[in-house]
Amino acid sequence: MSPARTDHDARRHDVSEAVWRVLAEHGFAGLTLRAVAAAMGASTGLVTHYFGGKHELIAHALDILETRTRQRPRLEAPAIGLPALRTHLLDILPLTPEGVAMNRIWVGSWDVALSDPALFAAQATRYERIRAVLRVAIEDAQRLGELPGRADARRLATTALSFTHGLVVQALFAPERFTPEHQTELVDDFLAGLAADADQST
Amino acid sequence: MSPARTDHDARRHDVSEAVWRVLAEHGFAGLTLRAVAAAMGASTGLVTHYFGGKHELIAHALDILETRTRQRPRLEAPAIGLPALRTHLLDILPLTPEGVAMNRIWVGSWDVALSDPALFAAQATRYERIRAVLRVAIEDAQRLGELPGRADARRLATTALSFTHGLVVQALFAPERFTPEHQTELVDDFLAGLAADADQST
Repeated sequence: MSPARTDHDARRHDVSEAVWRVLAEHGFAGLTLRAVAAAMGASTGLVTHYFGGKHELIAHALDILETRTRQRPRLEAPAIGLPALRTHLLDILPLTPEGVAMNRIWVGSWDVALSDPALFAAQATRYERIRAVLRVAIEDAQRLGELPGRADARRLATTALSFTHGLVVQALFAPERFTPEHQTELVDDFLAGLAADADQST
Repeated sequence: MSPARTDHDARRHDVSEAVWRVLAEHGFAGLTLRAVAAAMGASTGLVTHYFGGKHELIAHALDILETRTRQRPRLEAPAIGLPALRTHLLDILPLTPEGVAMNRIWVGSWDVALSDPALFAAQATRYERIRAVLRVAIEDAQRLGELPGRADARRLATTALSFTHGLVVQALFAPERFTPEHQTELVDDFLAGLAADADQST
């Protein structure tokens, strides 16, 4: 790789870092070429070298978001059933500073995604995929007698994801109240509620 | 009231209508003086007569959102307990075209609110207030034996609001799947889960 190429890649990485910092602090509403340049201590001209305009900047922001979400450190998932479901839910929540930044950016991205057909479709597919993952854990838990066998696993997956996403929003708006411990307690209460229902049916 | 005053008020109403339509279709990311002017079939100059810039436009948008939310038609709330809780949750969901537009705008507003201290505080207070309303219904339901008396009403209120807000987001991204009937079923399943827990404890 030529030095020029390496410089280019390094600079590209710096730009992505700056986009992330701007998003975490100011959201999509504050994501401008000028703000990214300021976050890098560079000229707006340099940033326009990478992005033609706001639309490309947003597209790049969502790419970073998707990549970082995929690559984020996760709790080690227990193989199956209710503990796996618990881990999946906790992995979504803003329990660390990085998790707060990531969730803040995801929540902020909904405004843009709801009005852009391609982003809308990508987001819809994403939720479908997460619900499918939760559903597998729920079906395993049902087979193991940890969750009520009579419940509709697909609906329960939707309910679990709804609970978790709504908790993300409340936690972002009241971080002092929603400590990592409190968020974890709420998840455990939620799961205990589902499991208590199972005790009854078996 | 002078004719000029009446004209001014009528025009102000037109501007608010245009802001609402732009938000419902394009979100806060698409809320510009130019877009509002286009939605009115007016000049950008006319709109700048009402708003100095983007910040004032957003402030006005959030005022309309708050007012319309307060004044929206609601299901008639049964006096107390579990049916009241059910009504409160259904009142939040996007079950009508107006409810879809309002929720789309609320969800879109989170990006802006998360980065503006005054809007952030207003939103945090708003959620605190909704949780308090849900908590009263839950405590009544507990007294009536409709919900488990041993559960922490404050936590249950948080869980119920989390579930509902997360369901809003999923429904907005998959309107064909999340019909009003399906959303209502999910709420009823959620409440039945809480109630089943009560049967066990009494």
